[in-house]
Amino acid sequence: MYLQKLKNCHQNIKPFIHNTPVLTSHLLNEISGASVFFKCENFQRMGAFKMRGATNAILNLSETQKSRGVVTHSSGNFAQALSLAARSLGVKAYIVMPSGAPKVKKEAVKEYGGIIIECPPTLEDREKTAMQVQQEKGATFLHPSDNLDVILGQGTATIELLEDHPDLEYIFTPVGGGGLIAGTALAANLHGNNCKVIGGEPLAADDAYRSLLSGKIETNKTTQTIADGLKTQLGDINFPIIQKYITKIIRVEEQDIIAAMRLIWERMKIIIEPSSAVAFAALLKEKELFKGKKTGIILSGGNVDLKNLPF
Amino acid sequence: MYLQKLKNCHQNIKPFIHNTPVLTSHLLNEISGASVFFKCENFQRMGAFKMRGATNAILNLSETQKSRGVVTHSSGNFAQALSLAARSLGVKAYIVMPSGAPKVKKEAVKEYGGIIIECPPTLEDREKTAMQVQQEKGATFLHPSDNLDVILGQGTATIELLEDHPDLEYIFTPVGGGGLIAGTALAANLHGNNCKVIGGEPLAADDAYRSLLSGKIETNKTTQTIADGLKTQLGDINFPIIQKYITKIIRVEEQDIIAAMRLIWERMKIIIEPSSAVAFAALLKEKELFKGKKTGIILSGGNVDLKNLPF
Repeated sequence: MYLQKLKNCHQNIKPFIHNTPVLTSHLLNEISGASVFFKCENFQRMGAFKMRGATNAILNLSETQKSRGVVTHSSGNFAQALSLAARSLGVKAYIVMPSGAPKVKKEAVKEYGGIIIECPPTLEDREKTAMQVQQEKGATFLHPSDNLDVILGQGTATIELLEDHPDLEYIFTPVGGGGLIAGTALAANLHGNNCKVIGGEPLAADDAYRSLLSGKIETNKTTQTIADGLKTQLGDINFPIIQKYITKIIRVEEQDIIAAMRLIWERMKIIIEPSSAVAFAALLKEKELFKGKKTGIILSGGNVDLKNLPF
Repeated sequence: MYLQKLKNCHQNIKPFIHNTPVLTSHLLNEISGASVFFKCENFQRMGAFKMRGATNAILNLSETQKSRGVVTHSSGNFAQALSLAARSLGVKAYIVMPSGAPKVKKEAVKEYGGIIIECPPTLEDREKTAMQVQQEKGATFLHPSDNLDVILGQGTATIELLEDHPDLEYIFTPVGGGGLIAGTALAANLHGNNCKVIGGEPLAADDAYRSLLSGKIETNKTTQTIADGLKTQLGDINFPIIQKYITKIIRVEEQDIIAAMRLIWERMKIIIEPSSAVAFAALLKEKELFKGKKTGIILSGGNVDLKNLPF
């Protein structure tokens, strides 16, 4: 079932996304000991893989739903992705954001045509406001990571990566809300070449690691990590997929994340956001396990505030 | 004569360099009004096009010369390029650097296997010290930009760019010591499709612009520019080539350079050094002239100090 869905999804979203390049680096191969293939979703439209899932989710709405718009609450990449995907498809996107969200994030959403609805800064208020928009506008709520169409969309990065490099033994992704790793796991599993999927997660927000141990969705009490895209928790739809298909989650400390980010910036000369660095940091953390292995890394995004770098 | 030399040069250096990718950006096309093809020499080995010229210059030495090593005075990308090219070819590279040069630059040279010879910080001392190394070691002096083999090597980036996009109408490069633009001009001219070469130069170090006006090599009294690779002046070998083959030089101010650098970092998610941004800044400066034109930009390098960014 998933296989055909994934293939259809990829066909459907292709006109609206980039087939991003896969880069390699001799130096990073030397440093890691593995043979690493970086899937550059930082070069994706609006700068992150979220464009894939957002596009697929909107494409799967009925014409009536599309005419009434979509709504989400996010101040991160999904807000921008939904705005741009909606604009590309002639659909309105309402983005619920805390009134105190950074100006640069608000402006990015506006630039992509999203309609910002401000709310007080609690999760409760965000959900209440999103609910109001659904009721008043008839807009369809789209969750950034716990939505099967979003998950399938995120999996298409791995379809492309495995088309180019069918013999990868491992693929690493960062773990935040779980949409990317769930989609990656489905795609790798359906590819059928025994390619294993491994998550990288900040130790400071290791809810997914603990969820796999306990067998239920755990939350983070605090999330003091530079990987600001990875503070959210798993959901009811992606968690069973993650439980079933991924091999393990490797936790990394803040200095590991910054060091991995710096290596990629300095050696590969590409801009990735801290959340992206977490996957490579995880590989480096346990590199003795992956010596000589053909390994994919999903570089999830490249949206950083240049005025606020960790170097 | 040049045509065959250039082709041979490209064949010879191919095993030692990357054929760097050519990237495009819808957003930067929109902003510039041109159709822009960025030749990413920031992804070149050691992070800059200088690798090409350094490799070609060493390959053209006799076996005796190679056995005695090469020497240059530079604290920039050519020092790193010569070190790495020499190591790849089993040759010793002596790099004369002022004793007060930034630690990060010294370490980069050492990492690539270069042997640093320190000297006092005047040009006279650098030249005297380089001369001593030539006499004591029998090493061959290689100038970073005023050497025909170096110039031909730098031209190979344009050979690759025009192989991929033979119908380019313009190619922009930054202008510093003149090696890159001279090589680019030779390659574009020999390509024979009426592709015009235009230089971008910082207004704060506009010696090349003034040299074209006066018909003799001019110097800079001051060089207060963020484009630290472009402070040097033209030489006797590259100047006649530049006079004969390039269309014009467009001067840009410091804020133009920083704005162009920022656009490329934020929109393309790639790391370029300020000197690289000068070529794109020049296009933006006179963009009404290049509306709808297929235009190549040589992104010359990506070596930046992340602790010292202009944003």
